[in-house]
Amino acid sequence: MNPLQIHLAVSLLHATYGQAIDDDQLEAWPEFFTDDCFYSITSYDNHQRGLEAGIVYCDSKGMLMDRVSGLREANIYERHRYRHMVSMPATVQAEGDIVKATTPFAVYRITRNQPSELFVTGCYHDELRITGEDQLKIARRVVVCDSSVFDTLLAIPL
Amino acid sequence: MNPLQIHLAVSLLHATYGQAIDDDQLEAWPEFFTDDCFYSITSYDNHQRGLEAGIVYCDSKGMLMDRVSGLREANIYERHRYRHMVSMPATVQAEGDIVKATTPFAVYRITRNQPSELFVTGCYHDELRITGEDQLKIARRVVVCDSSVFDTLLAIPL
Amino acid sequence: MNPLQIHLAVSLLHATYGQAIDDDQLEAWPEFFTDDCFYSITSYDNHQRGLEAGIVYCDSKGMLMDRVSGLREANIYERHRYRHMVSMPATVQAEGDIVKATTPFAVYRITRNQPSELFVTGCYHDELRITGEDQLKIARRVVVCDSSVFDTLLAIPL
Repeated sequence: MNPLQIHLAVSLLHATYGQAIDDDQLEAWPEFFTDDCFYSITSYDNHQRGLEAGIVYCDSKGMLMDRVSGLREANIYERHRYRHMVSMPATVQAEGDIVKATTPFAVYRITRNQPSELFVTGCYHDELRITGEDQLKIARRVVVCDSSVFDTLLAIPL
Repeated sequence: MNPLQIHLAVSLLHATYGQAIDDDQLEAWPEFFTDDCFYSITSYDNHQRGLEAGIVYCDSKGMLMDRVSGLREANIYERHRYRHMVSMPATVQAEGDIVKATTPFAVYRITRNQPSELFVTGCYHDELRITGEDQLKIARRVVVCDSSVFDTLLAIPL
Repeated sequence: MNPLQIHLAVSLLHATYGQAIDDDQLEAWPEFFTDDCFYSITSYDNHQRGLEAGIVYCDSKGMLMDRVSGLREANIYERHRYRHMVSMPATVQAEGDIVKATTPFAVYRITRNQPSELFVTGCYHDELRITGEDQLKIARRVVVCDSSVFDTLLAIPL
């Protein structure tokens, strides 16, 4: 893939990823990742400091699947949905079969009988593996949220 | 058009569509649609239930033109403008000359002497007809707004 | 470059531009411009009236560099960052080596220990010079902010 094709393939991945979550197809969410993936959610400040722990931390596709199962079984959260708005990938470099991309996002939250509200802004720091023509899987995604002030209600994946 | 070209052509359509509305070129708005188009605005909950009526409902390009004329003549609304932010198309499939796409959007409203404010988030559910090289017209657009809480001021098209 | 390639190259420029600012790499910001560039920030109302002065006005790359130096030295502002969300370019036309594009954006502001908040929405009105394969520099950027209500804190570039 040439640079513009990669750029577009990344943006297409982001779009289908966000859509799966926003349409409550959470079981499809782990399928965007490689088996040996890394996924975490952290804050800008912690990311700058090199702290890796994060608020959410999964280091395999199996852990992502467990997370979804947990969400389905718990069901104790106030009903809400997200709307992912994803900007164009800001930097994209391919080395071998790995593409590095950073992509700004804004996620809105919709709670029953309320207008949409801004939930969080941030940036995906990704390593994506090329697995076929125009096909990418997420090998590593660090979701860096701009604010350190997190709502306790971080149940649905970002 | 290959999948990436279609993806890009759809995003280009969304961009010029939003721009026409935001620049108050409402007379250009019906020109994005086919003559026998369908356009409606509804809520996520009603869309999930399969209710088709919607808050706004037009089943021809002529009705869209009437809507614009009505807006121009009425002019009773508090002056305001929109700013459309459109994410990348989330799913794009071509069958024959029809492309199906779903695309998240956020629309901000600007009222005189006020800062921009989030008006609505949602998703375009589109059937787009390929009418030429890189050219698409909207055959069917269902504007699914995330929240059921609508401002009464839904005059300008989304 | 064909129209779709141009469209994509413009969106890629916007993405890296926003990222440089949001990652506090302000020294990289003037490098997105040609030496004889024009850059201004103005409001929708003033832009409609043809007023060119704007809130910020720079007519060379040197002035942009001075602006960054001033920001670095002053350092009197409350610490804050931006998050640029950039929509797809709405209109793109190439004449010779110049591409005209208008692109909606939303910028969020992050102040220490606060959630992200919407800072400003608007539209980039650009003239971009093709300087190589898939390479563009900004010859003229007028940042048209939707609202005339400006926060006094307009230090970081938009």
